[in-house]
Amino acid sequence: MSAPPPVSAAAYEPRRHRLLTFHDAAARFREGADTPRAYLERCLAVIEAREGDVKAFAFLDHAGAVAAAEAASERYRRNRPLSPVDGLPLGIKDLIDTADMPTELGSALFRGRRPMCDAAIVDALRRGGAVPVGKTETVCLGSGGPPPTRNPFDISRTPGGSSSGSAAAVGAGMLPVAIGTQGRGSTIRPASFCGAFGFKPSFGAINRQGIFQATLSLDHIGFLAGSLSDAWIVAQFSAERAGGDPGHPGLAGAAAAPLPKKPARLIRLDTAGWPAAEAATRAIFERYLAELARAGITIAGRRDDPAIEAYEQALAEVPQNWRNLYWYEMRWPLAQYLERHAAQVPDRLKAGIVASAALTPADYRAALAKRDELRALHRALAARCDGFITLAAPGPAPVGMDQGSAAFNEAASMLGVPTVALPFLTQDGLPLGVQGLGAWREDEALIARARWL
Amino acid sequence: MSAPPPVSAAAYEPRRHRLLTFHDAAARFREGADTPRAYLERCLAVIEAREGDVKAFAFLDHAGAVAAAEAASERYRRNRPLSPVDGLPLGIKDLIDTADMPTELGSALFRGRRPMCDAAIVDALRRGGAVPVGKTETVCLGSGGPPPTRNPFDISRTPGGSSSGSAAAVGAGMLPVAIGTQGRGSTIRPASFCGAFGFKPSFGAINRQGIFQATLSLDHIGFLAGSLSDAWIVAQFSAERAGGDPGHPGLAGAAAAPLPKKPARLIRLDTAGWPAAEAATRAIFERYLAELARAGITIAGRRDDPAIEAYEQALAEVPQNWRNLYWYEMRWPLAQYLERHAAQVPDRLKAGIVASAALTPADYRAALAKRDELRALHRALAARCDGFITLAAPGPAPVGMDQGSAAFNEAASMLGVPTVALPFLTQDGLPLGVQGLGAWREDEALIARARWL
Repeated sequence: MSAPPPVSAAAYEPRRHRLLTFHDAAARFREGADTPRAYLERCLAVIEAREGDVKAFAFLDHAGAVAAAEAASERYRRNRPLSPVDGLPLGIKDLIDTADMPTELGSALFRGRRPMCDAAIVDALRRGGAVPVGKTETVCLGSGGPPPTRNPFDISRTPGGSSSGSAAAVGAGMLPVAIGTQGRGSTIRPASFCGAFGFKPSFGAINRQGIFQATLSLDHIGFLAGSLSDAWIVAQFSAERAGGDPGHPGLAGAAAAPLPKKPARLIRLDTAGWPAAEAATRAIFERYLAELARAGITIAGRRDDPAIEAYEQALAEVPQNWRNLYWYEMRWPLAQYLERHAAQVPDRLKAGIVASAALTPADYRAALAKRDELRALHRALAARCDGFITLAAPGPAPVGMDQGSAAFNEAASMLGVPTVALPFLTQDGLPLGVQGLGAWREDEALIARARWL
Repeated sequence: MSAPPPVSAAAYEPRRHRLLTFHDAAARFREGADTPRAYLERCLAVIEAREGDVKAFAFLDHAGAVAAAEAASERYRRNRPLSPVDGLPLGIKDLIDTADMPTELGSALFRGRRPMCDAAIVDALRRGGAVPVGKTETVCLGSGGPPPTRNPFDISRTPGGSSSGSAAAVGAGMLPVAIGTQGRGSTIRPASFCGAFGFKPSFGAINRQGIFQATLSLDHIGFLAGSLSDAWIVAQFSAERAGGDPGHPGLAGAAAAPLPKKPARLIRLDTAGWPAAEAATRAIFERYLAELARAGITIAGRRDDPAIEAYEQALAEVPQNWRNLYWYEMRWPLAQYLERHAAQVPDRLKAGIVASAALTPADYRAALAKRDELRALHRALAARCDGFITLAAPGPAPVGMDQGSAAFNEAASMLGVPTVALPFLTQDGLPLGVQGLGAWREDEALIARARWL
């Protein structure tokens, strides 16, 4: 390859790259072969070595983490761990409230803000013994940009957004799990760019209270993790303790990660992203699909089935509908921030807030109706396959600090279906993710199929 | 009648009692026969005369109201009112954020709190020219108690809660409209006790962002008003400008209040409230139903139709299911308030928070499933009648400052259907409300039928 070598790290090689995992470490904690304190120290050593370049953290609570890990170690010593997440070093996106660490939402407007309470998910994980290590960087209010964080595989490139720090921390091997959010592509895109696993559960599956959300009907909690098992265990535990969103039954499934299950038939989707994908990226994805086919999995696409073609045509309209939903919903509180604190609102947001003033309730209702139609098409196809597969991004992380395209990600946020990013591909020595989508509220089945892949 | 005379006001006589109305005043503003400034002055005079006894306000912004009413008067003078609510003097429940007035949630925990933004509904009404006069009293966090407010018809009695100050201000003739909320009976109950009209639109019909909500799947915005026309106009305008809750289409209907429409067939419901109602109260309600029947309206009840009997049996289980939903959802953030600030959490809430710890996700899912069943029964019956009618409370406001029973109100909060309180009855010289329920998202039809009544 004639490209210049990456600036800051070795080229990404999916089969050799090792991310941190926790479920296996927890087994060793129980055997006395390792301790949460020692595990944390290893994380802190990587943070120490890489944070100067990567800038994943808005705030690091070294002392708090050591104390929490020490307490967890003591519980394992007494053979009384609190839960499957006891001792888990955790990064928390800075849109998520923490009572003992500042929560600044990536915004000068909230400099030094100290919430009164932990967000519901933070409270749940803390009570389970998890060890919050710090707050991870995000773009301003989840929508401005760019973040200070850099891609751990090449610091001249973006980590993606808006869960930038969470993805970079996991991709750099600083942490086994970090919490993010997604209203557009904010979990799956940075997972793809940073070589991490991403898991965005079904809409409503995990209590979002205490999280800054500009667009309530699009926003999800997401997990960036070194393995799907850890992503599942943390998600399931969070839902068990904090519930789903009020009015929702919450994530369904067992505490342990589901065993891998081979899918028989997958639908490959173009979505609105395919036209934006680089030719080299498309070729890499096609080779990957060919591998799956050789492994005996049927891959159906738009040319195989008129129902898939109809769904693809609806997916092509997603960008416009996503924008209408997003800009209409974000008017509160962002229009008031703009009115009262214009200097602290980034230009990227200003333009949207101004544009949003033209949207009427009728526009919003039309966008909701389009979303209902899209969901119905997805539901009908989901009943006839074992999942949907597509790229997680149109290419590897671009140079510069723009967050990169979310063209492949808006559909999953609008549909509200469970979605994973799998860091299985590589291009130009950089990570590239495969995206898997399941059926609404069938998260456990998606994780089982994705684990097989 | 041998009862002692009321302490603070003349006996309530529904046909003679005059509440403030605004839609008619707005017509006079346009003709130049009255001005928002003069209207406000009349409100302030009543507030001046009664507030010492009634204590409806947590905060009064005299200067701000005068300035806003002056600006509105100027717009009418130039024949350019901003909207149907331009110049409307408005009370705002203190659970609802206001950027220019403290928002203390009735709680010592939030003494002096100044939100950064107006709640979405406040922002909408302000942009339409409405004149916020003050923040109205509520019970601590909407659930503790009692409020400082007293019943305007007898200050030894409760105004009901938790929209205590909003209902008392309207009932006392201080304001034509005040905003409240309802997750249990917090709009309909105090409307009944204070002789005000109450309107709780369909769940999701009006954007709740910027309002403290302990139980997101039960909470509604509610309106206390001197007329159904004003309640409708304010609700419709709020939804038009602020939207519904994200993901909901928002209140449907025209800007003007729908014309009265005579119902042909009403279903009278006992709900879980009837067994709690006083014998005298039941007799008053039966006489009212007999009047409706004489006016040619068919009244069907549980003995007339097995489907109504089945629905009544489901309604009898509402109190237990409401509690399970309520206590499970309120854990965030109340459990953390208790943990960190126990001294400032009222005993009434403490007991619930402690009890909530025993609720499991399975309990919550079961309560959601029961709610779905209840909604299906209501929907099926709603298609076969022009509305449901029952008492708004088991009797007039009780002596003492306890909020009174919500036994007649929990069903509407669980169902999420549009609901009105109509101050048509009287008992012992005190107001007593009739409650009307419609079909979900058919708010306009309910208002039309209720206006006829």
